[in-house]
Amino acid sequence: MSQAKIIDGNAVAADVRAAVASQITILRAGGAPLPGLAVVLVGADPASQVYVRNKNKRAAEVGINSFEHYLPAETSEAELLGLVERLNLDPQVHGILVQLPLPAQIDAQKILEAIHPAKDVDGFHPFNVGRLVTGGPALVPCTPLGCLLLAKRELGSLSGKRAIVLGRSNIVGKPMAQLLLRESATVTIAHSRTHDLPEECRRADIVVAAVGRPEMVKGDWIKPGALVLDVGINRIPAAEPGKTRLVGDVAFAEAVTVAGAITPVPGGIGPMTIAILLRNVLEACCRLHDLPFAEVL
Amino acid sequence: MSQAKIIDGNAVAADVRAAVASQITILRAGGAPLPGLAVVLVGADPASQVYVRNKNKRAAEVGINSFEHYLPAETSEAELLGLVERLNLDPQVHGILVQLPLPAQIDAQKILEAIHPAKDVDGFHPFNVGRLVTGGPALVPCTPLGCLLLAKRELGSLSGKRAIVLGRSNIVGKPMAQLLLRESATVTIAHSRTHDLPEECRRADIVVAAVGRPEMVKGDWIKPGALVLDVGINRIPAAEPGKTRLVGDVAFAEAVTVAGAITPVPGGIGPMTIAILLRNVLEACCRLHDLPFAEVL
Repeated sequence: MSQAKIIDGNAVAADVRAAVASQITILRAGGAPLPGLAVVLVGADPASQVYVRNKNKRAAEVGINSFEHYLPAETSEAELLGLVERLNLDPQVHGILVQLPLPAQIDAQKILEAIHPAKDVDGFHPFNVGRLVTGGPALVPCTPLGCLLLAKRELGSLSGKRAIVLGRSNIVGKPMAQLLLRESATVTIAHSRTHDLPEECRRADIVVAAVGRPEMVKGDWIKPGALVLDVGINRIPAAEPGKTRLVGDVAFAEAVTVAGAITPVPGGIGPMTIAILLRNVLEACCRLHDLPFAEVL
Repeated sequence: MSQAKIIDGNAVAADVRAAVASQITILRAGGAPLPGLAVVLVGADPASQVYVRNKNKRAAEVGINSFEHYLPAETSEAELLGLVERLNLDPQVHGILVQLPLPAQIDAQKILEAIHPAKDVDGFHPFNVGRLVTGGPALVPCTPLGCLLLAKRELGSLSGKRAIVLGRSNIVGKPMAQLLLRESATVTIAHSRTHDLPEECRRADIVVAAVGRPEMVKGDWIKPGALVLDVGINRIPAAEPGKTRLVGDVAFAEAVTVAGAITPVPGGIGPMTIAILLRNVLEACCRLHDLPFAEVL
């Protein structure tokens, strides 16, 4: 029985952050402005608060200025649109992130489309989505871009490789497929309506699992030697009564004996997301100020 | 040896135009404005002139007003941008089509991105491309939308069907893949770097060929009973010396004995494109005036 390489997402994320920090140091020495990230959180969801605190800490570490905007849960859509408009115009802010989900009285799509595309560090604005598809410069969603950089680091060129993306969300699956296509992989997008998912999966040199179903992808779905990127983060009951644990969308214990390389959960793709967000803030700042930007991996 | 159904694109296109015409008649009777299409042609390319004349004739037949703008080949980018801006503001114009290719001194992408997304009846603006991906209301490129409507007419639901799109152009391949995904097909995008294209192709229930290589897709690439949509229009030497003839990207004589249904070249997808353009002008007009729009097939 073979044993896949287990990709250490924490280590790669640290490399990304180090690359971002060193670019910022060099740019600042040349007189560039301090990159700034504005994070907007509406309501008091505890998980989101932890996440935003973590973002701010990581931003500070690499030399990115954080602006936090905590709004009450009853904030109106008009108020939030007003804040977004001020942030669009604020020269100290290069990236705007409105934490999802938003309360029911606010149309999330309307808010995302109000963020200036040049500051849309989540890459969710239709203009950036369209640019990613058609090939112009675009800010790209963090999680799939993290997956792509990991895949290129593991495999080098992706040209001609068969890739399957499991899941077709706007946040992961669809942009992931575009990124793999941009690298000239042969890309299949599979989802809940796909017939014989195991067979489709077994044909792939690269598997990206982003369906949100715990351990759905079994070991015998994996082509021997394939690269498996597990985006799922699912909380399930642990063996010990009353406890829970995190698992991915891939049955790791099985897949690790077949794959060539695999990301664990936790500690795989997860840590990449915030690291890539910081990368995106740097890219947005560079583009807004016509400064050079170098890819971070 | 079986014989596929040969899809009569001219007949389907006529159905589309009839549906557009009848919707316009009903809307006009209710006091709606005359839908207007502005076509901009820079330079005197004879093929483009024929195409534009054909568009105008078809538009008039269904009750769409045409505004033609013939500009000299030496038109500057600023002049063309100025015209686009006037058309964006013109209340009589609901669709703007800038005929490609444009002369070298004009950045085509800049022009396409200057067209107001609500009047972008070619569906090439990144905002519409992004909306197509993420699921909001969007104007969609004419040729792939024509293919999709044909596929739904032939097969009914596309959910769970395996589709392969050969070619990854911004005009056909990429939007085609998004449209098929939207209908819950399992979609593979293949291209020049794909390994073993015949094998990939043989797995598909729906084949869309848009690579621009004459008769590349052979009969034994086709799964028996599959639907084959041939977007290619290639001119090759005919048997008679000095003559030429049009062929698609599919070796029709072979494929017709294997497929379940197939579009010929000429007379398949080709006639659909202008018909769908008229549909798009109607849709743009309806959205701009908050009028109901019904799908045409």
